[in-house]
Amino acid sequence: MHPELSALIQSIRTADGGAMTRARARQAQLTKPAGALGDLEDLGVRLAGVFGSETPHPRGVAVLVAAGDHGVAAGGVSAYPPEVTPAMVANFLAETPAGPGGAAVNAVARTVGARVYVMDAGVNAELPDHPALIRAAVRRGTRDLRRTAAMTAQETEALVLAGAALARRAIEDGADLIVPGEMGIGNTTPAAALTARLLNVDAAEVTGRGTGVDDVTLARKLLAVREALARTPATDPLTVLAEFGGYEIAAMLGMMLQAAALRRAVILDGFVEGSAALVGVALAPALRDHLFPAGECAEVGHAAQLSALGLKPMFRLGLRLGEGTGGALAAPLLLAAAATLREMRTFEEAGVPGSP
Amino acid sequence: MHPELSALIQSIRTADGGAMTRARARQAQLTKPAGALGDLEDLGVRLAGVFGSETPHPRGVAVLVAAGDHGVAAGGVSAYPPEVTPAMVANFLAETPAGPGGAAVNAVARTVGARVYVMDAGVNAELPDHPALIRAAVRRGTRDLRRTAAMTAQETEALVLAGAALARRAIEDGADLIVPGEMGIGNTTPAAALTARLLNVDAAEVTGRGTGVDDVTLARKLLAVREALARTPATDPLTVLAEFGGYEIAAMLGMMLQAAALRRAVILDGFVEGSAALVGVALAPALRDHLFPAGECAEVGHAAQLSALGLKPMFRLGLRLGEGTGGALAAPLLLAAAATLREMRTFEEAGVPGSP
Repeated sequence: MHPELSALIQSIRTADGGAMTRARARQAQLTKPAGALGDLEDLGVRLAGVFGSETPHPRGVAVLVAAGDHGVAAGGVSAYPPEVTPAMVANFLAETPAGPGGAAVNAVARTVGARVYVMDAGVNAELPDHPALIRAAVRRGTRDLRRTAAMTAQETEALVLAGAALARRAIEDGADLIVPGEMGIGNTTPAAALTARLLNVDAAEVTGRGTGVDDVTLARKLLAVREALARTPATDPLTVLAEFGGYEIAAMLGMMLQAAALRRAVILDGFVEGSAALVGVALAPALRDHLFPAGECAEVGHAAQLSALGLKPMFRLGLRLGEGTGGALAAPLLLAAAATLREMRTFEEAGVPGSP
Repeated sequence: MHPELSALIQSIRTADGGAMTRARARQAQLTKPAGALGDLEDLGVRLAGVFGSETPHPRGVAVLVAAGDHGVAAGGVSAYPPEVTPAMVANFLAETPAGPGGAAVNAVARTVGARVYVMDAGVNAELPDHPALIRAAVRRGTRDLRRTAAMTAQETEALVLAGAALARRAIEDGADLIVPGEMGIGNTTPAAALTARLLNVDAAEVTGRGTGVDDVTLARKLLAVREALARTPATDPLTVLAEFGGYEIAAMLGMMLQAAALRRAVILDGFVEGSAALVGVALAPALRDHLFPAGECAEVGHAAQLSALGLKPMFRLGLRLGEGTGGALAAPLLLAAAATLREMRTFEEAGVPGSP
């Protein structure tokens, strides 16, 4: 393993239990009935653990969208042609009357004051120059996971480190809540293979309709996942990631590891993001303490990922888009959870009589 | 009925079906798989109907917190003493290092950029002067609903109109998303009576633990609701509201009616807010088109209210606080839903290939 990656993994610490205990104690004194803020209280305590303070103060939100193509997409596993990947990268970067970017993640990010970063992690096209495009591609799309390893070990590590570098940049720019996002036609296929192998469940349980494939395409997709799984017995997390891909998943893994290493919170969007998280938790179990699932998405297999992570999603809005859209949508809930711990007065401060 | 109230009720129109149809058609062309934004797409279409545009552009968010006391609170139906109501009003208005207000609703509202308005709708205390306190009280707390009508018809109408006036002011100040909120020790008791009568269900189905009462207090509360229901056969919505109270519920009804009449969206917080909405929909069925339930709260009976309204909540975070906290928390989801309709580019605009 690349020494930088090894050091990154080893630098991830569990949440600050003392800060969590103090946050719980503080919540009991704030001017509200005990437990009346429901799951928001648990989120607040977990944020206290991440930021090491019973009054956590996360600053900005950043959505880091990594785009990559997949060799398997030529096999017809998606409702959309692979050409959509580069076209959507251009869409993420486009100038529009509302500001930069004309995709869902741009629109949602603007409403929550989040900055969107766009990375070419391995798109199968010559992308036009754009000052805001972060270039990290080492190859134009992965190899076909049905026939061979989608990525080499070296490529995998390069993309993990590129994701980590982008997370560092976003944190330097002021972000404390990091939302990894992705775009890549066909990428729920490698995500399903990763999830099936890492959770040791049958492919059918975690292979879903992605962008909305029909029954025949779903059967073809399931076959692709089964072929990939049958091709290699790998169980080592980074080897599994290299075998199935893809580049944007490797980049998101790096974002998560780096954010956790720098004691920031990671908001988890959907199924593809979840597959990167499973690799991450297998490498560094303490990463889990830094992960905050946004919503349970509509993709089959996402619930299994969340259950394996032991984390509860904040909403169930039936999203199945990716891009980090759901993650951006969840950011205000975390900001609110932290604000209640930080800004509410205690019964004593407010002179409010408590429960007898 | 007061002619101003009658005119207000009659001025409420259903949603703009044409704008909703155009919004659906637009969503099919935006750069995302069909339906991939899940419930956010339905919320966007409903907002298009409220604002009469397929590209709805809600501006500000306002939380209007009405506070009132309840005669029945002396009967021991809450986990907290009635003195908490005026103390919490002071807390809503207090200067704190973070800004005005040290309660949960203040902290959450700040994170979503919402302004909080505080109304004395009938608190049982001499409230100290404060420039931001809106004084609308006609009596210091309602009468005991177990023994007599909680409010007179005249008092009820006065508070409905006061709520409407506050909504007009907030809208003039720039709010397009109106969050009615409340504070009033004991107010889940009148809310349960209202809900039982208007939905024609047994009191036990809609009488819950409120701020967290124990089994004995819950039994006493249920008895109070049953006594109130047995005391009067009223079914006319405004009469039911007057019989059971309270002043803050009447004020919230006025906020909802006025917001709908001015074609604004109302975000519904919890069970007490829901009881005001049930009165409102009984008076003006078209009000329903303007209501957006935030979360399903933990209070027994809230699910029955939402089911009767035929509306789906945005999240289930187990909140049971009131104040409008959940409503403020939901505002970013509505702003995001509108932004996707308004700011996303179409497949054609972005040059993205569609599904074959």
